[in-house]
Amino acid sequence: MFKIALLGAGRIGKIHAANAAAHPELTLSHVVDPAAEASQAVAAATGAAVASLDAVLADASVAGVIVASSTDTHLEYCVAAHAAGKAIFCEKPLDMDLARARAAADSLQGARLFLGFNRRFDPNFQALKARLDDGSIGRLETLQITSNDPAPPPVAYVKVSGGLFKDMAIHDFDMARWLLGEEPAEVFAWGSCLVDPAIGEAGDIDTARTVLKTADGRFCVIANSRRSGFGYDQRIEAYGSGGMVRVANVLESTVQVWTEGGAQADRFQNFFLDRYRDAYRQEMTHFADILAGRVGPSVGYTDGVAALALAEAAAQSLKSGLPVRL
Amino acid sequence: MFKIALLGAGRIGKIHAANAAAHPELTLSHVVDPAAEASQAVAAATGAAVASLDAVLADASVAGVIVASSTDTHLEYCVAAHAAGKAIFCEKPLDMDLARARAAADSLQGARLFLGFNRRFDPNFQALKARLDDGSIGRLETLQITSNDPAPPPVAYVKVSGGLFKDMAIHDFDMARWLLGEEPAEVFAWGSCLVDPAIGEAGDIDTARTVLKTADGRFCVIANSRRSGFGYDQRIEAYGSGGMVRVANVLESTVQVWTEGGAQADRFQNFFLDRYRDAYRQEMTHFADILAGRVGPSVGYTDGVAALALAEAAAQSLKSGLPVRL
Amino acid sequence: MFKIALLGAGRIGKIHAANAAAHPELTLSHVVDPAAEASQAVAAATGAAVASLDAVLADASVAGVIVASSTDTHLEYCVAAHAAGKAIFCEKPLDMDLARARAAADSLQGARLFLGFNRRFDPNFQALKARLDDGSIGRLETLQITSNDPAPPPVAYVKVSGGLFKDMAIHDFDMARWLLGEEPAEVFAWGSCLVDPAIGEAGDIDTARTVLKTADGRFCVIANSRRSGFGYDQRIEAYGSGGMVRVANVLESTVQVWTEGGAQADRFQNFFLDRYRDAYRQEMTHFADILAGRVGPSVGYTDGVAALALAEAAAQSLKSGLPVRL
Amino acid sequence: MFKIALLGAGRIGKIHAANAAAHPELTLSHVVDPAAEASQAVAAATGAAVASLDAVLADASVAGVIVASSTDTHLEYCVAAHAAGKAIFCEKPLDMDLARARAAADSLQGARLFLGFNRRFDPNFQALKARLDDGSIGRLETLQITSNDPAPPPVAYVKVSGGLFKDMAIHDFDMARWLLGEEPAEVFAWGSCLVDPAIGEAGDIDTARTVLKTADGRFCVIANSRRSGFGYDQRIEAYGSGGMVRVANVLESTVQVWTEGGAQADRFQNFFLDRYRDAYRQEMTHFADILAGRVGPSVGYTDGVAALALAEAAAQSLKSGLPVRL
Repeated sequence: MFKIALLGAGRIGKIHAANAAAHPELTLSHVVDPAAEASQAVAAATGAAVASLDAVLADASVAGVIVASSTDTHLEYCVAAHAAGKAIFCEKPLDMDLARARAAADSLQGARLFLGFNRRFDPNFQALKARLDDGSIGRLETLQITSNDPAPPPVAYVKVSGGLFKDMAIHDFDMARWLLGEEPAEVFAWGSCLVDPAIGEAGDIDTARTVLKTADGRFCVIANSRRSGFGYDQRIEAYGSGGMVRVANVLESTVQVWTEGGAQADRFQNFFLDRYRDAYRQEMTHFADILAGRVGPSVGYTDGVAALALAEAAAQSLKSGLPVRL
Repeated sequence: MFKIALLGAGRIGKIHAANAAAHPELTLSHVVDPAAEASQAVAAATGAAVASLDAVLADASVAGVIVASSTDTHLEYCVAAHAAGKAIFCEKPLDMDLARARAAADSLQGARLFLGFNRRFDPNFQALKARLDDGSIGRLETLQITSNDPAPPPVAYVKVSGGLFKDMAIHDFDMARWLLGEEPAEVFAWGSCLVDPAIGEAGDIDTARTVLKTADGRFCVIANSRRSGFGYDQRIEAYGSGGMVRVANVLESTVQVWTEGGAQADRFQNFFLDRYRDAYRQEMTHFADILAGRVGPSVGYTDGVAALALAEAAAQSLKSGLPVRL
Repeated sequence: MFKIALLGAGRIGKIHAANAAAHPELTLSHVVDPAAEASQAVAAATGAAVASLDAVLADASVAGVIVASSTDTHLEYCVAAHAAGKAIFCEKPLDMDLARARAAADSLQGARLFLGFNRRFDPNFQALKARLDDGSIGRLETLQITSNDPAPPPVAYVKVSGGLFKDMAIHDFDMARWLLGEEPAEVFAWGSCLVDPAIGEAGDIDTARTVLKTADGRFCVIANSRRSGFGYDQRIEAYGSGGMVRVANVLESTVQVWTEGGAQADRFQNFFLDRYRDAYRQEMTHFADILAGRVGPSVGYTDGVAALALAEAAAQSLKSGLPVRL
Repeated sequence: MFKIALLGAGRIGKIHAANAAAHPELTLSHVVDPAAEASQAVAAATGAAVASLDAVLADASVAGVIVASSTDTHLEYCVAAHAAGKAIFCEKPLDMDLARARAAADSLQGARLFLGFNRRFDPNFQALKARLDDGSIGRLETLQITSNDPAPPPVAYVKVSGGLFKDMAIHDFDMARWLLGEEPAEVFAWGSCLVDPAIGEAGDIDTARTVLKTADGRFCVIANSRRSGFGYDQRIEAYGSGGMVRVANVLESTVQVWTEGGAQADRFQNFFLDRYRDAYRQEMTHFADILAGRVGPSVGYTDGVAALALAEAAAQSLKSGLPVRL
């Protein structure tokens, strides 16, 4: 059993706490959060002790930490945990600022840092990746990533979110890199405010189309909207020399109703915690594998920096109206 | 070009007339119908001449006839046309009475008689048959035939229809024989009146479940209802030693609407003339092939008798409440 | 927290143990199994103590028991647990013998006995039931239950299984009763040995078609096979006066591959523990609700007896070749 | 009956000839083609007379012409036919050169010119349009048009095709305009040669991603490839404020095969003449409606010019690497 500590007991922290507590190889020993109510709730549910960050880092029996605190603390906590010899499971994004993220490279040299790009752990996207890897469609040529939220977040959130590209499309940039197996060479992005004028007034967009191009001319189109109107819309189509493989949305059940109006399938899952429930579990299993030394992190610091670089390039393209070379 | 004559200018006769007129190898030369209005309408639309049955049979230039008249005339017209040396495309059923149908065996000896079990010519069911024949699912073990009309016919029609088994399930009995490649050895049928009490008062049923069993224990379940509530419901599932092949219903378009309520496909085709439009065209092509001597009828007199025998056995089982051995 | 004990630490017992251990309101305090290795494995994984049945029944702090032992002990353990004042979560079937099951009625009078017909707790079948209840398809008229295992069990198992109807179709009889909301009045069954001759030599069948009929003429067809060739095939179609609602099989992922060969969806889930993983969790939640007094058992002793009665009637029909009135 | 003449008896000309001949209101009276073999074949199949263009234009009994000759003659024939008072059904594109097409505006003033953008007449895309018009998804915000050919054409064809944007994407530009109900204000296009290096050597691309943007910030992404690897891939997704409506590809049949490998649907239709068979028939019905004065052309000269303008803008963007304002 590996003892691990949770830093940050908010919404995503609670998910990770429950998964850690249920994992047969992990014990959630400590929970750290300045908000006493939040940390105590997690402690009560899991049997972990409420603790301070310093105490956790000083405790040699703690093998790893989960960094689920606010984004501006991610880098600092990662660096401190690495210095204390802990393995790290850090929530995405690494940071809001590319330069800051890059500046941490030296301090994180050699870190066992697993960055939580959860979509890579979704069974559906993993099945897609497996089909690409086993040659089901020949050589991958183009990608179409559709990534629409069910409904826009409050404007208050939008204002501190870092903008659509860093807050929302960052996942899609990571998926593009993961599936293409190559860094995009050029980015072009257009964006609009079609969903909620208040988002525009806050200086952000709610709808975007981003095109990535690799050095050898392969493409990835990313379609983002803050509101789908029908649920959590997370689909990918991958075209290769021998066909296409795609991931469809997940329905709440397999029920179909046939009436005069047509054939109606159930609703799409509406909430990311439902859609990615299994992905979060798989992340914790991966962290256990890292702690046990069976594998290294499959996604980490350099991936976090690269996704952030794409997000900044997209934002720059949106501003200039021109393609941006990376 | 082969000259052919149409006997019977009703709803299905008009379909065949149009398909014959459009076929590059066929000329619809005559149309026969005691109802002058009906025969004249077909004549006007196709360029055929209105004629009497005797004239058609006496005209040596007429190579074939389409028997689309009322069911009680089918056998008589087939026998007369065969005696006159014509090839025959006869609508199903051969007759309402098994004994009568069997009694015609001698008179129809050697007839080029093509019986219009249209479902065998539907591209979807043909694709199913092809999958069975090419071994896609190994040896066929069981069948599930679902065959529901969109809405019940008028009770006046029900009264003269010969009953659900002869009028409606007759198609399914033919499909079962065609796909099983063997005569069922035993039949069990249960029926009810769930859709329209007036059908029950007319002495018929509107809902039935019929199970066919072959000598070696393979099964076919036929589910019939006079009303589906969602369109023309014509599906088959065939289970083999290596998997399953099935035919789904045909939708009016490939449009799908995704809203908060779920994913909605278009309506199912509602009308048998839509669903089997291509099947009727393929029937005419088959008739042209027969006239040209390229093939013999793929379905004919013996199939008509066998389907009728199953319908009578099902009716007998319904009455007695016991399985019936054939 | 309610303390509960597990009686029987076999395959299904382990599932229930894990779900009980993970449930926030339940503590698995004891595990009972004559096979020391099995009980110790569960004890190690969950923190429960290995104990004897007598000790468990005598321990007033134990609020409930899970009966997951061999079928021939179900009734005895239920009766004993009830006498000791415990709530009971008993695996299906209640017993292999209808007369014996009926004879236990008095001893189980007033028991808080929840019978684990797991399919009622599957989210897909629950969604089907919800559509029936909310009137989505009007009045329910007929059911088609398809229930095929991926592959036949070893013949050694078949010999002690009680036969296809009690071992396998028992689930479908329960689903039929649950969905029809009424006891079937008549049963007709045909069976064959098409999959494995050894099953026939063992005196059982591997393929069956059973038709249930209610007093007012509604039908349920149950199609069973010990081998589907494509995975765990668990589907239901329910037809009503206004349309149809159906449950499709569950795929391993939403991935689709499009190549020259067509559009290929992922494989169907192959294993009942995968397909019904969520159902088993929901069962445990229901048991917690019963223990807390929030609800009574939604399915219990009378349901177990009724399903067994249908299974015996089907077996009798198979033997006699005649419909059986209940 | 309206007498119409066919100008150009190539592949698409033959389709129109057969549809005209089969239309109850139309008579194909003449066929014009410098290639005697081609015109005689159409004449033999339809009963039309082989004639010269001058004779057709001089024949006052001819009400309309179908312009299906080589693209470089389209404008000239349209102008001549209009001058002779004929209604015109002209194949797309209007011309290969935007300036030339614009220059014909005066000569075609008042022409009854129907331009054959066949996809507008496809029942599936019409169903999509109907859903947009009836408010099924609220206000249309973004479009995703996927338009991939089954396999690349011979390089000899590519060389004279006018390039991917004018030859292939021209259809998609027209669909974008039709569905958006508005002229795009800006175009950005990237292209590559991923399918066949010979296409690149011929100076063309075989893969493109084009983004259109309207004045109010709505988007349309067009994905084109000369080779899909799985059939004729013609899909559209339209996102609105209340959901999404999409058109799926058309399968050869509704057959599905379920085996250990998964659920396999039939192949996608591979050939544009199959996929758009009904669209071509509907076009002829629309032309008959125009001839009868029941409607004006639903798509004509200005649509042809506008689609060509988008194609030229896309080509210019591809060349410059910058967005192009229209």
